[in-house]
Amino acid sequence: MKLTGFTDYSLRVLLFLAAEPGRRATIAEIASAFDVSENHLTKVVHHLGKHGWIETVRGKGGGMTLAKAPADICIGQVVRGTEGADMPAECFADDGGGCLISGCCRLKGVLAEAVLAFYAVLDKYTLADISRNRQVLGKILKIQAA
Amino acid sequence: MKLTGFTDYSLRVLLFLAAEPGRRATIAEIASAFDVSENHLTKVVHHLGKHGWIETVRGKGGGMTLAKAPADICIGQVVRGTEGADMPAECFADDGGGCLISGCCRLKGVLAEAVLAFYAVLDKYTLADISRNRQVLGKILKIQAA
Repeated sequence: MKLTGFTDYSLRVLLFLAAEPGRRATIAEIASAFDVSENHLTKVVHHLGKHGWIETVRGKGGGMTLAKAPADICIGQVVRGTEGADMPAECFADDGGGCLISGCCRLKGVLAEAVLAFYAVLDKYTLADISRNRQVLGKILKIQAA
Repeated sequence: MKLTGFTDYSLRVLLFLAAEPGRRATIAEIASAFDVSENHLTKVVHHLGKHGWIETVRGKGGGMTLAKAPADICIGQVVRGTEGADMPAECFADDGGGCLISGCCRLKGVLAEAVLAFYAVLDKYTLADISRNRQVLGKILKIQAA
């Protein structure tokens, strides 16, 4: 069972920003800190901005910050947004996917229940919970204080 | 959050066999019933046999049947086996993946808890539970009675 790379990178961006909440960060420095492609992060940052998790200031001295307090950013909500249409199996598509038995399949209900349980755990945690060790994170990611 | 196609196909094979538990089925007819590639199913069937979920008799009149009663085939156990090394994010790899913060990341524990909750739901169900409507399944899949 796999989350998309898009989800993985989104959570890394949020963790980076939570390490020094007041400070503006650029895509280039987050990409460099995690050694990932700027191109991937650009899409991730666009998505996070569109959904109101981060704010971006353009121009010189610009960059992104969290748009809310870390305690108000629920991991379950973030992951639901980044996973989007990525469902556990093809039968979860609106048209039932290509599976012949999707109309009567009892496995689908079981998988749906398991997915709910997965998100119910993520809903219990906020960005504040997973960034309590922000000093350590900041050090490893070499983030200069705000 | 996505399961592999390998898991999807494995569960379809088990559902097919559960529709008429006494009857021997061939890869060709299961592939035809679900309109999927025989090549994919061959690997799936090999895996299911190796893990003791199905039995195969070779030669004329041969084919596969369930190796246990449907009530003794736990969906959680099957899916753990078919998902195998497919973990929610790269940091679940034995070497921590490529992520710089994997050693101190608190998100990893949260994801691990969510994955446990996902499998805990699947553990509550057996193949018998999801094939109680086996007459309907048999009809849709055009399976002849044993």
